[in-house]
Amino acid sequence: MSQQIIHPIDLILKKRAGEELSTLEIQYFVRSVVANGEQKLNPSAYRPAESTITDAQIGSFLMAVFQKGLSLRELADLTLAMRTSGEVFDATPLHSFTVDKHSTGGVGDKSSLLIAPTVAAAGLELSPSISVPMISGRSLGHTGGTLDKLETIPGFDTQLSLARMTEVLLETHAALVGQTPRLVPADRILYAMRDHTGTVESPFLICASIMSKKLAEDIRGLVLDVKVGSGAFMPTYELSKFLAELMVSTGELAGTRTTALLTTMDEPLGRFSGNWVEVWECVDIMKGVRHPMSADLIELSNALSGWMLFLAGKSDSPEAGAKLADDILRSGAAYKSWLQIVAAHKGDISTFTDPAAFHKPKATHVLKASQAGYLSAMDCKQVGWAVQRLGAGRTKPGDPVGAHAGIESHAKLGAKLAVGDPIFTLFSEDAALLDEPYRMLEETVQIADTPPQLQPLVREIVTRDSLPKK
Amino acid sequence: MSQQIIHPIDLILKKRAGEELSTLEIQYFVRSVVANGEQKLNPSAYRPAESTITDAQIGSFLMAVFQKGLSLRELADLTLAMRTSGEVFDATPLHSFTVDKHSTGGVGDKSSLLIAPTVAAAGLELSPSISVPMISGRSLGHTGGTLDKLETIPGFDTQLSLARMTEVLLETHAALVGQTPRLVPADRILYAMRDHTGTVESPFLICASIMSKKLAEDIRGLVLDVKVGSGAFMPTYELSKFLAELMVSTGELAGTRTTALLTTMDEPLGRFSGNWVEVWECVDIMKGVRHPMSADLIELSNALSGWMLFLAGKSDSPEAGAKLADDILRSGAAYKSWLQIVAAHKGDISTFTDPAAFHKPKATHVLKASQAGYLSAMDCKQVGWAVQRLGAGRTKPGDPVGAHAGIESHAKLGAKLAVGDPIFTLFSEDAALLDEPYRMLEETVQIADTPPQLQPLVREIVTRDSLPKK
Repeated sequence: MSQQIIHPIDLILKKRAGEELSTLEIQYFVRSVVANGEQKLNPSAYRPAESTITDAQIGSFLMAVFQKGLSLRELADLTLAMRTSGEVFDATPLHSFTVDKHSTGGVGDKSSLLIAPTVAAAGLELSPSISVPMISGRSLGHTGGTLDKLETIPGFDTQLSLARMTEVLLETHAALVGQTPRLVPADRILYAMRDHTGTVESPFLICASIMSKKLAEDIRGLVLDVKVGSGAFMPTYELSKFLAELMVSTGELAGTRTTALLTTMDEPLGRFSGNWVEVWECVDIMKGVRHPMSADLIELSNALSGWMLFLAGKSDSPEAGAKLADDILRSGAAYKSWLQIVAAHKGDISTFTDPAAFHKPKATHVLKASQAGYLSAMDCKQVGWAVQRLGAGRTKPGDPVGAHAGIESHAKLGAKLAVGDPIFTLFSEDAALLDEPYRMLEETVQIADTPPQLQPLVREIVTRDSLPKK
Repeated sequence: MSQQIIHPIDLILKKRAGEELSTLEIQYFVRSVVANGEQKLNPSAYRPAESTITDAQIGSFLMAVFQKGLSLRELADLTLAMRTSGEVFDATPLHSFTVDKHSTGGVGDKSSLLIAPTVAAAGLELSPSISVPMISGRSLGHTGGTLDKLETIPGFDTQLSLARMTEVLLETHAALVGQTPRLVPADRILYAMRDHTGTVESPFLICASIMSKKLAEDIRGLVLDVKVGSGAFMPTYELSKFLAELMVSTGELAGTRTTALLTTMDEPLGRFSGNWVEVWECVDIMKGVRHPMSADLIELSNALSGWMLFLAGKSDSPEAGAKLADDILRSGAAYKSWLQIVAAHKGDISTFTDPAAFHKPKATHVLKASQAGYLSAMDCKQVGWAVQRLGAGRTKPGDPVGAHAGIESHAKLGAKLAVGDPIFTLFSEDAALLDEPYRMLEETVQIADTPPQLQPLVREIVTRDSLPKK
């Protein structure tokens, strides 16, 4: 089979006409893209003759995919070919049901920090054993990143080798790590190509990018948190749902039980948005301190954990799973797991004794209600950008982030405000960075005489059974 | 204006969505493509910062254009930006109405060899003076090339400098030359990119490629011969007509009077298809020898010359122009011009004394009718490939062509044949090359009991007045 000659131009001509590519053709594309990328890094390296796709051909092919889409079969083929383009995590030694969650990105969304210890705690006992091999990303654009939050814990090492990741999982049933350079190189190369050829926004290519990295975790279950609303990456509810369906189909075709929750992202989730402040909020919750502003965060985390526990066979329904997750949080079992997980990553758990005291911003400022009424709306993406400008996020990959930058939300949408009531407290490590985010928040917050129509937190659930029939 | 910063990604995003690009954006694209191409040839050369489009971006942009098309305004902008990407011919010193014809490519189509001397002969006298600055191409694929035919005349030099081309035009009112490397470099670079990114067949990009080269001749009038039928480059009548309309619109927007004739290419044009044999056929016609098999060629040449003479103001109608062209052919005036033109290109005119004697193929073979009936159909593209395989064409650019390879047609579609009547005589410079083309011709020729429905030679005429109104 590998002797068959495939020419890049034939793939382009087929996709240009909206025709379906074969599995071999898609595997060829991914292989040759990786060879092309490696060729650039190391021009003198040996490159097999068949890997002679050019940059121009990759650009043309990506645009053809953008315009014509992929069938669900092609999409699964692309995702799996990308998944195996480099090293993959091997969960066999764990003898455990591996399960993970992934979010398309939100503001103040720290649910991973609650979910990983919660599901790990449930998975410590057998029948069945569950493990969470969670490979996360960094803050980008208006959304935060789990790795940046974790790295505010002194000593916390997110850059584990796959071997060390296995040890941590065997010990604590959860690992919270970053992508290694050798994991899914096809995605890194293709993402850079998409970024500068105007093909980032294709739901098909977004799906392949996300799912190739998740499936490289060797997981048997996956719960996706696909955001909708003003803070979501996808511009419309319909596109978010379409992406969710593509990802569920792809996961299921790859043999991983996959469910997607479409969840509302119209305001920051929970009490804090930033880096250390988000760790602080989760530590409080796991210690049993439930601040009223954290209610939506806890609801979301339990819903996602519930689905993970259900897929792992730990509960009879996602609802029962959510109840179990809440019990684990309240019992202190999640906090116990959390301390073990952090310690296994060389994090200093002494910071959790008084997390509020560890929060040391250089400057703060409070945005107050200038009129009485109901907090009725905000552009949540703008809020995310304000958090980024305070120093919590980065302008380009590789930039450092401020550990103590961020915001505290004092009111949720629908809250009744008097003049002078605080809405947001802004934190920054540099007083000069406060003004612009303050104006951005001031501009986007709307107060009205009547309460707004609010959306439920979980809007819709996409499972393999709810997928549109072909 | 030139200070405005344009980013390649913005062009891609706009075109991806089917939006219209500005004139400046299109000029930027062409400029940066040329800079990119020159950068590859000479990596150490200075390249302005704005010309940082990448191969991948060019590929993506071309595919977006393939999928979304161009407006007529964008197309004219692209064509003119390509036209001025290198040196252009300057017709000012001629003080003459410059006019040319262009064919989308046919089999046995040698009309340029008749048209150039005919129109030049008409243009030798003033009121008005007419000149034909004809820049032609070479044989490619199944179609022949004017330069390859001319170069079978001993000594004939098609590689004139623009300065020498001006001298020849002042002297003979026609020049028959090849493209110089510095003429329309954007087309050479873009064509190579299109060729390997699967974007050759876009009618918009085809139009820009053809018209940028024709408009670089500084012509005031242009007559296009757009082929339809089984030997045409475009796969359907509708696409041929669409291309014709794009080219007429583009020419007119650029200030050049442009007309397109949609003409039938269902069988080889005239008596001979090949290289020297086509020169021979034209010399016979210009000497007043009208072989019955040349009737369609003469009709086509006169129709095209007629339009050129009409656009130049030499006749009151295209029909009167065609009559004038036929008079010029019959009078010997075209032949006189021909001898001057060939001599000006250093061609040996003694070969025209007995052109049949100069025809020296090494091997010939005759395809005869295997049954009685009407010659009813052939795939003219197959016939063209057979001519190519005999050695008259080339497999890849730069290959030499056989001067004496080709075919003679003995019957036109609709002819009544007896068993054993000759249909084609095949000529080659290598006996080993006869078999495959013979089989190809044998396979494609169809003989039926009833005469076929034949199409008129000129199917439709597209002028600025017949263009669809927006």
